[in-house]
Amino acid sequence: MDIIFEKAAKIRLVIFDVDGVLTDGSLFLDADGQEYKAFYARDGLGMKMLQSTGVIIAIITARSSPVVKQRMDSLGIEHVFQGQLDKLVAFKQLIAKLKLEPQQVAYVGDDLIDISVMLEVGLAVAVGDAHALTIKHSHWQTPAIGGRGAAREVCELIMQAQGTFQSELSKFGIINDR
Amino acid sequence: MDIIFEKAAKIRLVIFDVDGVLTDGSLFLDADGQEYKAFYARDGLGMKMLQSTGVIIAIITARSSPVVKQRMDSLGIEHVFQGQLDKLVAFKQLIAKLKLEPQQVAYVGDDLIDISVMLEVGLAVAVGDAHALTIKHSHWQTPAIGGRGAAREVCELIMQAQGTFQSELSKFGIINDR
Amino acid sequence: MDIIFEKAAKIRLVIFDVDGVLTDGSLFLDADGQEYKAFYARDGLGMKMLQSTGVIIAIITARSSPVVKQRMDSLGIEHVFQGQLDKLVAFKQLIAKLKLEPQQVAYVGDDLIDISVMLEVGLAVAVGDAHALTIKHSHWQTPAIGGRGAAREVCELIMQAQGTFQSELSKFGIINDR
Amino acid sequence: MDIIFEKAAKIRLVIFDVDGVLTDGSLFLDADGQEYKAFYARDGLGMKMLQSTGVIIAIITARSSPVVKQRMDSLGIEHVFQGQLDKLVAFKQLIAKLKLEPQQVAYVGDDLIDISVMLEVGLAVAVGDAHALTIKHSHWQTPAIGGRGAAREVCELIMQAQGTFQSELSKFGIINDR
Repeated sequence: MDIIFEKAAKIRLVIFDVDGVLTDGSLFLDADGQEYKAFYARDGLGMKMLQSTGVIIAIITARSSPVVKQRMDSLGIEHVFQGQLDKLVAFKQLIAKLKLEPQQVAYVGDDLIDISVMLEVGLAVAVGDAHALTIKHSHWQTPAIGGRGAAREVCELIMQAQGTFQSELSKFGIINDR
Repeated sequence: MDIIFEKAAKIRLVIFDVDGVLTDGSLFLDADGQEYKAFYARDGLGMKMLQSTGVIIAIITARSSPVVKQRMDSLGIEHVFQGQLDKLVAFKQLIAKLKLEPQQVAYVGDDLIDISVMLEVGLAVAVGDAHALTIKHSHWQTPAIGGRGAAREVCELIMQAQGTFQSELSKFGIINDR
Repeated sequence: MDIIFEKAAKIRLVIFDVDGVLTDGSLFLDADGQEYKAFYARDGLGMKMLQSTGVIIAIITARSSPVVKQRMDSLGIEHVFQGQLDKLVAFKQLIAKLKLEPQQVAYVGDDLIDISVMLEVGLAVAVGDAHALTIKHSHWQTPAIGGRGAAREVCELIMQAQGTFQSELSKFGIINDR
Repeated sequence: MDIIFEKAAKIRLVIFDVDGVLTDGSLFLDADGQEYKAFYARDGLGMKMLQSTGVIIAIITARSSPVVKQRMDSLGIEHVFQGQLDKLVAFKQLIAKLKLEPQQVAYVGDDLIDISVMLEVGLAVAVGDAHALTIKHSHWQTPAIGGRGAAREVCELIMQAQGTFQSELSKFGIINDR
């Protein structure tokens, strides 16, 4: 875990995949082809806390859905890349724009399409129920599965590693926890 | 369990968080940003039974959704506080209005934002799958997880402790159970 | 199991509760208070098979939702009693109308409100995740939980006990299974 | 597993049932009887990969829902047979049209209605949570359950058996995995 903490300490940007990472991978469809997704309340709180420590959050996803925009707006996340069949292209655009080095980026994924970016970043994370090859190419696998706390665990890992977790906790009136 | 029963015997008001407590934390969204939630039928019956014994039920939640109002109306719950980023403020308003002491209040939560109120009340309950720090600050953790019977277990605990469970059972034609 | 088979052999009518029995108890709500339910495909096939052997299926539920009517219509179930706070009244009306004895009726439930009818019928079934008191008042508990195959297991039990399962299987081109 | 690989090596067409195979069997309904289904993102990627190796994918389902058409369109699947109470008829039409032998076809099912086709094809697959009789009539049971990766496992088995998995992986920038 020490080496993971070292990697997490350097992170200035966390990129999340959506389906299977911020959701459990379920694609709800109706008769008109409208799509619904189920996000997880506790992931949202973690993402807000992490952002308030100054770490940037972004989304890169292969699929495209207005639902994702809705959720990310409500979490104050402005860097949302949808319809990215080659995620590496979006990744390079984003770090160039933010003037960040790959070592300062964490990426959280669940499937094969996530691996090309995971090979580039400083901290590659696979969710608990990720594809076996995605886990193989990750530095860390979250205990929680996608859409049920995996994103929250990534946010808390980074805050712990950067020493910002206690001050975030104090905003909730929680003192002296570790 | 004896000390939990003692605390439960004094409760006149039970406050529930919504996401992660009355639901499993899933936030279903559609393309227009409309929100859907999944409540649990058996929790609803417990909340109706507890209210019929004279214990008041209230809701304090950080998020805001018309869905919550719909569900609480159907359960006859009138004290619904939504959009409460500082839950302690709503808590203090509510007990002042109801002329209750903190010792007469139970609070059921799942995440960090619930802890400030949990530190004040007579019976602080964490759902079975609550955040580790929320569990740490609770008096009792329900066996069931949020949205799958946790609220029901809180309602039955209080009725058991107050000796009202048998008379509620008798309304269903059930005699002499313990 | 022998005594359960004996009871099941006499059944001419199976009454199902809805929430927690034909669903997993989740009540999906939207902002307008419209309700959605998730039924289980494999339960539907079992209910169709059982009906084709001449056993009648009915629904008695405390709650009221147009969704239930939609699903039951698609399964060809005409005896649908909704909004029944006292299920015993509906039960007595139904067996009088169908000229059946209580011994010829099975009832499948998950919660306290189901017990009054379960005390009357020939075969009282609790789903796998029913309330402890409901299980206590049942003759049989299904291995599967509500909304995930419990109803199917009841249908197959009755067909097995009545010797009609093989002929139903033969309609699918399956021969000589037991 | 060797004999399964041998069977999988010959497959030119994979036919999937929908409810319980591409979904977990949940039928979401609203008050107007409109139906919603939850598909699985990772199954979709597997089906796209398999198709890009030249294997054809088709759907034969007993039920009928516009949702299925929507999802299959988005995956580029043109052979969609809905409302097929006798699946064997649709199966025979399809292989005649595609000029394929039964030995070149895999079928993936979960319930009794799937068995008649499973008895005909070269590779009969039951999902992890299939009905016991469906499992009995299958050549292979997927570790994953329906709607949570079963279809993905079938797609990867066939690509592994046909030696096309590595070249598909290379499209994601993944080299030398096995």
